[in-house]
Amino acid sequence: MDIEELRQQGLARRREMFGAPAVEQRQEALGEFGAPLQNIINAYVYGDLWGRDKLAARERSIAMIAMIAALNRPNELKVHIQGAVANGCSAEQIREVLLLVTMYCGVPAGIDAHRIAVEVLGKDI
Amino acid sequence: MDIEELRQQGLARRREMFGAPAVEQRQEALGEFGAPLQNIINAYVYGDLWGRDKLAARERSIAMIAMIAALNRPNELKVHIQGAVANGCSAEQIREVLLLVTMYCGVPAGIDAHRIAVEVLGKDI
Amino acid sequence: MDIEELRQQGLARRREMFGAPAVEQRQEALGEFGAPLQNIINAYVYGDLWGRDKLAARERSIAMIAMIAALNRPNELKVHIQGAVANGCSAEQIREVLLLVTMYCGVPAGIDAHRIAVEVLGKDI
Amino acid sequence: MDIEELRQQGLARRREMFGAPAVEQRQEALGEFGAPLQNIINAYVYGDLWGRDKLAARERSIAMIAMIAALNRPNELKVHIQGAVANGCSAEQIREVLLLVTMYCGVPAGIDAHRIAVEVLGKDI
Amino acid sequence: MDIEELRQQGLARRREMFGAPAVEQRQEALGEFGAPLQNIINAYVYGDLWGRDKLAARERSIAMIAMIAALNRPNELKVHIQGAVANGCSAEQIREVLLLVTMYCGVPAGIDAHRIAVEVLGKDI
Amino acid sequence: MDIEELRQQGLARRREMFGAPAVEQRQEALGEFGAPLQNIINAYVYGDLWGRDKLAARERSIAMIAMIAALNRPNELKVHIQGAVANGCSAEQIREVLLLVTMYCGVPAGIDAHRIAVEVLGKDI
Repeated sequence: MDIEELRQQGLARRREMFGAPAVEQRQEALGEFGAPLQNIINAYVYGDLWGRDKLAARERSIAMIAMIAALNRPNELKVHIQGAVANGCSAEQIREVLLLVTMYCGVPAGIDAHRIAVEVLGKDI
Repeated sequence: MDIEELRQQGLARRREMFGAPAVEQRQEALGEFGAPLQNIINAYVYGDLWGRDKLAARERSIAMIAMIAALNRPNELKVHIQGAVANGCSAEQIREVLLLVTMYCGVPAGIDAHRIAVEVLGKDI
Repeated sequence: MDIEELRQQGLARRREMFGAPAVEQRQEALGEFGAPLQNIINAYVYGDLWGRDKLAARERSIAMIAMIAALNRPNELKVHIQGAVANGCSAEQIREVLLLVTMYCGVPAGIDAHRIAVEVLGKDI
Repeated sequence: MDIEELRQQGLARRREMFGAPAVEQRQEALGEFGAPLQNIINAYVYGDLWGRDKLAARERSIAMIAMIAALNRPNELKVHIQGAVANGCSAEQIREVLLLVTMYCGVPAGIDAHRIAVEVLGKDI
Repeated sequence: MDIEELRQQGLARRREMFGAPAVEQRQEALGEFGAPLQNIINAYVYGDLWGRDKLAARERSIAMIAMIAALNRPNELKVHIQGAVANGCSAEQIREVLLLVTMYCGVPAGIDAHRIAVEVLGKDI
Repeated sequence: MDIEELRQQGLARRREMFGAPAVEQRQEALGEFGAPLQNIINAYVYGDLWGRDKLAARERSIAMIAMIAALNRPNELKVHIQGAVANGCSAEQIREVLLLVTMYCGVPAGIDAHRIAVEVLGKDI
């Protein structure tokens, strides 16, 4: 397959998941400097990996939240909690993942992740 | 609820997931020194968290693999790949999680995690 | 022991260490969404672990600062530097821990931790 | 560009850097299970990134050693110290990078990285 | 050699690399509390390590960016991207290092590092 | 103070803490390649930091174990558990630190650290 085609497929999938304006804003923020990074994200990540069919998008989002909370990357965690909602995860299910994070990555990781989640999901449940 | 009750429930759940002999062996390896650690694992983790009902065990295993690969803990990753199989994840689904690990935690994390997975699942698929 | 009893003991210990208003504010910030997390913190961490008697609270605080600086969690580091003062650590002793952090976790970890410490302790000594 | 073409270019570059037998052995060890991972490594990493021309291979190797030592991935660190030698780094230059690792990632990271380096480079210099 | 002499040499090198006012401001921000930390940075890091002659300052900067992006320390990453420019790295070369970070430390590390780089280098290239 | 003097003081302190044969063996394992690393460890770490007087060696060991368990460096963790015993920590006190590690760095970190501790301290207590 041609990379440009993969890139277009990935960009379409990414827009569906996060909304086109959010994707444009994120691409715009890094401008020309970020072009090769955007190619990695669009073609290799959303075009190739997220296009594979053995795991549902909702299940991928469960893995994403767990992984990015473990990696201590709050900006990306926020984005992927939004993505998880778009992919059909309920607030209660996201919270279950964060409770696993709390016990397996430690209480400080759990508290930080809850704080980010409350920004997206609100504190009522 | 009484903690001893929670501990018994968790130990039963843990034995179901990993097999009683594997659990005994892991508890035995740390002896009396490890008793308070085992209480944390049995009562708080498998008794409390894994007993909650908003996420299926199979979905929890997806989160576990992603998280422990990110944390760079090969011994525990191996145990939880075995647990994922017991909880109904196919080798192909586990591989999808490891491909997300590769792109989101980096290629060295992905390679190390694949190596562990192949020890459990074999290299054919 | 009953978990509710453990939770009450832990909450009392936590209030003593950080002040009741700070604890309420932290619990309130995560609302209903954070209730199971607060149970982990109150019952399992401050009720169980911090209630054990082989290590003084001051010694636990030394471990906490070293560990949370290594984990790169600035919000929690700030909280636990405040806790360390409440538990009897002097600013000079906290600084000694941060100098170990600098050499064993690296200079960037050391600089970030010093920056947080100065917010709590001031820059004179 | 077609991905298959990129993959072939990357595989050729990788064989040049690590030797064809070492690459085959690494691919073989993960078998069919590892095929999508190998595609990421061959096409996206060695095909795309290592094919870009603004940084010399020797300079990329300096970045690799620093980064993988920081990530705490000893197997991959060993491979990339071998790659650094193939790309023209001297043992003395590799040691300089490891001394930066020691001060910026901490003494335990520095010691572990030196241990791996001595396996590849020997302990005389 | 006397440590005070090493400290003076390091401080001079650090001022050359980051500009005297930036260095004073960073030292001032931590005041008396930060004095032993500044001694580590001036004498041991910039006096000893950066004074060694087997690696050019520009090559050290390549290692620094890779390592600090991997360590997830945005404040220090910003400082060392500025230092890399002073040491002769072009924006395009810094970007190449960040693309390696993206694939070897993962996409969230890559995005965060690009964001910091754009603050220093701008988004045009 | 002269660096050579600092280095001698540090080496003496290190030999006292770990035993002269263990220190020689560790220095010998890295040979000439490791000489600048050994200077960092002897002069800057054990000469400077461990020679400062506001924290007892036993308290420093508490910080060391917490920090190195968080850093996921098993070889160095083993060495510093031995050092903690030499500095007067009891097995029960070391275990308390590892229980904090379990809850604040996560269960996999806790299990790995317990495994190392049992190698040094035995599994009875």
